[in-house]
Amino acid sequence: MTTAFEIPNPDWRPEGWDAPGHGIDDGAAPAGWLPADDLAVIRAQLPIVYINAVPVRLDDSGDVTQVGLLLRMGGRGLTRSLVAGRVLYHERVRDAVKRLVEHDIGPMSLPIIPPSPQPFTVAEYLPTPGITPFFDHRQHAVALCYVIPITGDCRPRDDALQIDWITPEGALTPEILRSFTDGQDVLLKQAIAYLGRLS
Amino acid sequence: MTTAFEIPNPDWRPEGWDAPGHGIDDGAAPAGWLPADDLAVIRAQLPIVYINAVPVRLDDSGDVTQVGLLLRMGGRGLTRSLVAGRVLYHERVRDAVKRLVEHDIGPMSLPIIPPSPQPFTVAEYLPTPGITPFFDHRQHAVALCYVIPITGDCRPRDDALQIDWITPEGALTPEILRSFTDGQDVLLKQAIAYLGRLS
Amino acid sequence: MTTAFEIPNPDWRPEGWDAPGHGIDDGAAPAGWLPADDLAVIRAQLPIVYINAVPVRLDDSGDVTQVGLLLRMGGRGLTRSLVAGRVLYHERVRDAVKRLVEHDIGPMSLPIIPPSPQPFTVAEYLPTPGITPFFDHRQHAVALCYVIPITGDCRPRDDALQIDWITPEGALTPEILRSFTDGQDVLLKQAIAYLGRLS
Amino acid sequence: MTTAFEIPNPDWRPEGWDAPGHGIDDGAAPAGWLPADDLAVIRAQLPIVYINAVPVRLDDSGDVTQVGLLLRMGGRGLTRSLVAGRVLYHERVRDAVKRLVEHDIGPMSLPIIPPSPQPFTVAEYLPTPGITPFFDHRQHAVALCYVIPITGDCRPRDDALQIDWITPEGALTPEILRSFTDGQDVLLKQAIAYLGRLS
Repeated sequence: MTTAFEIPNPDWRPEGWDAPGHGIDDGAAPAGWLPADDLAVIRAQLPIVYINAVPVRLDDSGDVTQVGLLLRMGGRGLTRSLVAGRVLYHERVRDAVKRLVEHDIGPMSLPIIPPSPQPFTVAEYLPTPGITPFFDHRQHAVALCYVIPITGDCRPRDDALQIDWITPEGALTPEILRSFTDGQDVLLKQAIAYLGRLS
Repeated sequence: MTTAFEIPNPDWRPEGWDAPGHGIDDGAAPAGWLPADDLAVIRAQLPIVYINAVPVRLDDSGDVTQVGLLLRMGGRGLTRSLVAGRVLYHERVRDAVKRLVEHDIGPMSLPIIPPSPQPFTVAEYLPTPGITPFFDHRQHAVALCYVIPITGDCRPRDDALQIDWITPEGALTPEILRSFTDGQDVLLKQAIAYLGRLS
Repeated sequence: MTTAFEIPNPDWRPEGWDAPGHGIDDGAAPAGWLPADDLAVIRAQLPIVYINAVPVRLDDSGDVTQVGLLLRMGGRGLTRSLVAGRVLYHERVRDAVKRLVEHDIGPMSLPIIPPSPQPFTVAEYLPTPGITPFFDHRQHAVALCYVIPITGDCRPRDDALQIDWITPEGALTPEILRSFTDGQDVLLKQAIAYLGRLS
Repeated sequence: MTTAFEIPNPDWRPEGWDAPGHGIDDGAAPAGWLPADDLAVIRAQLPIVYINAVPVRLDDSGDVTQVGLLLRMGGRGLTRSLVAGRVLYHERVRDAVKRLVEHDIGPMSLPIIPPSPQPFTVAEYLPTPGITPFFDHRQHAVALCYVIPITGDCRPRDDALQIDWITPEGALTPEILRSFTDGQDVLLKQAIAYLGRLS
């Protein structure tokens, strides 16, 4: 039982967690319901603490010059997305932000993790569409959302194939916004509004 | 299995969830570990999405005249506390804030739920003391923290025995701060700082 | 000159500061341009502390149901606008918010003035277009921006002819946004983003 | 008078606005009180847009390890203070933050200017003590307050004699707090509360 105290493996995922056909609408079972899987059980029972992070590059005055948008390969093909993932048991939010940013865009990306825990917004991903702007068929995730200045070199990893750096104005074009799924285009707009860069 | 889709009973609590002797320090098992209990299982595996709310009374200019401090009877005797509780599966944060405030201080308290999801801070309660200012022997809770103006009549309920309305200055006295547990005195100070009422 | 050390009279105001005929729209001259007038001199020398307020109606869960948009008659004809105005000498920000809301939409509008001084954003109106999204040919104004829940009856006054209550989604239509001037459409979008109601 | 409509010269400044001998502490007269001086006239008539900045050093997870406190020599002897100053006419807030930080702690301090204009609080310095926690006998200043991560080398300049880097806990000791004037100890506590580092 002593292992129960240990920090879980951050790379563990429930088997098939991102498989197609996992949606709440594809059958009798709720999203991700796998009897043998604790996290899957949990995902159908409780909201999950999540992080969403928007990587940005700043000029000397703190003005955002570029927003970093990930291109991911997933069950629904290529999509754009923000840095995202859950907070682990016994992990601080700021440590989760750092881990998730470095997981997606590499350990040399040198992110400036925000010194305050106050997020710019909270995005609620529900397994039922239409209740909030955000949707996640797998789970109910409550995401603390942060803007993360990046000062180093990015090397996207894992399912993050590429990071494209785009001006805030460019990121708000319909073509770019359409390439996001699950409402993350709305979150991107919220981030750009928070940064004072809507137009 | 159809019931799996239903909204959980908001009043359900894992058996013995607030019993004395539940602490991480009272044996080999992690906090709240009860093999037969899903929520207990979850509490030893994942951070829980929580709400902390500070009830306040405002004057016409929005200046806080009084902070509402609950007196609760619990396993450790009488303690002061803030409004607190978890967000349920498929429940929006704002609905959870409303439910928890009304649960603790009554349906006629007429809270003004903040229109923005941005919390004033995030309080991280870990089952290990000393990592953050906050501690919860039962679980790892990540609490979104809001200040809630109250415009109606308060009737504390359940384990909330009484609500005392105290000026911000009065709330910051050592006697009051000492009567909180698990770091909520720190959160109260953070709230008063956010309100511009530290001195 | 020793009196220079003394505390200024809090009730002192520059002569004619609130006189009719002082508005931006009352003739050929820009707002307040009177060679003998201190405020005009000041406006060409220093940024002015401003307030912008977005009136909203909330449901019981704090979700915004309607945004209040003013219709004003001015030099450029009918335009939509937000509640706006400057902070007076020796006036607290929260008192200015209350005064300006009540000035524009009436003393029975019963605004809930935000208990924290933290604005949701700062809008910088420069007399040169294009530097920020905001423009004011009269002055450099730095506006602290707040969302103000309204709980009473609105009676627009003075140059505010009418207040229209519109859903956040309705307020974001191009027709509505086009009816604002000086970048306040951007501020409205920022407010709706902050409220979690972009879509 | 038609030129009154034209865009003001952004490089125009009131004569002598940054001259030496203008400081609060350089003699018997309060700051800038010169009958012929526009700024002095203004200071007795309108609130001034101010910046307050708290320099911090962060670790890799964004946790504040040290707060930078300036030691200034002034009319009241040695006092501690935060970075502070006014926003100039036609200057953006973020440019003012950068200028003021670099003015006080040097051009190689490499500050990370916050990408969002949202301040963590607004501090209102009134020329009458007791209305807010903040006081400035010279003027009514409305200060937008930011936490500024510093990544370079600090060389205090001008009336800033020295910068001391102290842990948040160390900064909250009564000895340190007592060495501030005009309520800036309260602002320092507010900053540390915002950073989640009160204890």
